[in-house]
Amino acid sequence: MKVFLLGAGNSAKIILDELNFEKVYVYDKNFKQFEKLKEIHNEIEYLDIKNLETIDVDYIIEVASVEALKNYGLKLLDMNKNLIVLSTGAFADKTFRYNFVKKLNNKNINVYVVSGAIGGIDLIRTISNKINTITLITRKTPKRLGIDITTKEKIIFEGNSIEAIERFPKNINVAVTLALAIKNFEKVKVKIIADPFIERNVHSIEIKSKVGNYTFKFENYPSKNPKTSYLAPLSIVGLLKNIHSKFKIGG
Amino acid sequence: MKVFLLGAGNSAKIILDELNFEKVYVYDKNFKQFEKLKEIHNEIEYLDIKNLETIDVDYIIEVASVEALKNYGLKLLDMNKNLIVLSTGAFADKTFRYNFVKKLNNKNINVYVVSGAIGGIDLIRTISNKINTITLITRKTPKRLGIDITTKEKIIFEGNSIEAIERFPKNINVAVTLALAIKNFEKVKVKIIADPFIERNVHSIEIKSKVGNYTFKFENYPSKNPKTSYLAPLSIVGLLKNIHSKFKIGG
Repeated sequence: MKVFLLGAGNSAKIILDELNFEKVYVYDKNFKQFEKLKEIHNEIEYLDIKNLETIDVDYIIEVASVEALKNYGLKLLDMNKNLIVLSTGAFADKTFRYNFVKKLNNKNINVYVVSGAIGGIDLIRTISNKINTITLITRKTPKRLGIDITTKEKIIFEGNSIEAIERFPKNINVAVTLALAIKNFEKVKVKIIADPFIERNVHSIEIKSKVGNYTFKFENYPSKNPKTSYLAPLSIVGLLKNIHSKFKIGG
Repeated sequence: MKVFLLGAGNSAKIILDELNFEKVYVYDKNFKQFEKLKEIHNEIEYLDIKNLETIDVDYIIEVASVEALKNYGLKLLDMNKNLIVLSTGAFADKTFRYNFVKKLNNKNINVYVVSGAIGGIDLIRTISNKINTITLITRKTPKRLGIDITTKEKIIFEGNSIEAIERFPKNINVAVTLALAIKNFEKVKVKIIADPFIERNVHSIEIKSKVGNYTFKFENYPSKNPKTSYLAPLSIVGLLKNIHSKFKIGG
């Protein structure tokens, strides 16, 4: 399998730690980031994104940032290669989303938006048109939210995913993934709570539907980059393994 | 899309209610079951499983029973068509599982074991080799378990998935799906609890891993067949929609 990685940060490292590729091209706007990754994974080759047309790969894998995906997403589709994206927050931008999906519909490729820092998207996708309510509750340490409370939790924000995206543009991947899975941004409610009793961020998803009621709770350990969970880049590894397995378990 | 459905029960009905196919062949060992389904879905055509070689379909979909999948599984692989299976409990049989996977590895097709009555298999598959403990807790009403308790819950069974399969051979699909997802039957612990405070069965999955800690809770509504959840056949609908979508959300 030959791949092009957009982004040479910690997520790229985790993917390369887990999988062996035939060929790995990497671009990062910060060349030093590439050099750092090359020290650990000598097999990688630098490729300026301007020269993307000169290579042939099986998958393009975005592990860079919301900004990078918004900047390069349409160009990446033009490569006519299957594309895997981690920075789902880019699709919160309605214009970008519309243009991206419109272009994709004229192509014979697949785009995989991975489940990232959560799971259960298999179930949520399945019941998407039968959901009554879906709420994402994100608990963060008061320190992370810049608040000083020690004795009880405090609701910092309550609204739908569109409002959450406006208020907290940097921390929206999970809300956007849920909204894409159910094809409805208004329906996804978001609650952000400062919780002095937790050690690390905890996401919960609560769903009431015509099919049943479901609660998912995710307490992720961070990767070496404290802003990213270990789970999020691993979800790309899991996806690639599943695509290439003949005995596929789960939806 | 042309399909062959093995099984004409309520799961087949739910799939046909949700999706439009170009052509639907159906076999059920109970011909009356076929006739009942034909009354609601006139588009279906009976096909004896002995004559499977005479038709051309895109997917074979098993919605019959553990017994049917064990009887016909190897024969279905010989059709060289993608196969979707609901009765995952069949893979609890080590000999069947071994022969099935061995045969599949020599074929150029995919077998999809759907997530059925649970979800989160996307995440579980992703962290499969980094799990410390994984426990399936199934709470059932005392009545369902044939027990008379009213004041407090009672643990009926505690063991690994292999022991659970031996003790409760009729109710094992979920435990087997988890074992297949992490490729380890011994590691999946199962607890069955008679709980007088619930209205319907509740499955929980608790995971501790090197990636994080996760809890999933599923309170499924039954389909018209009280033995089957509405979610389980819908997971086949969700899978088929996702396979045929270019913009794939989740793992």
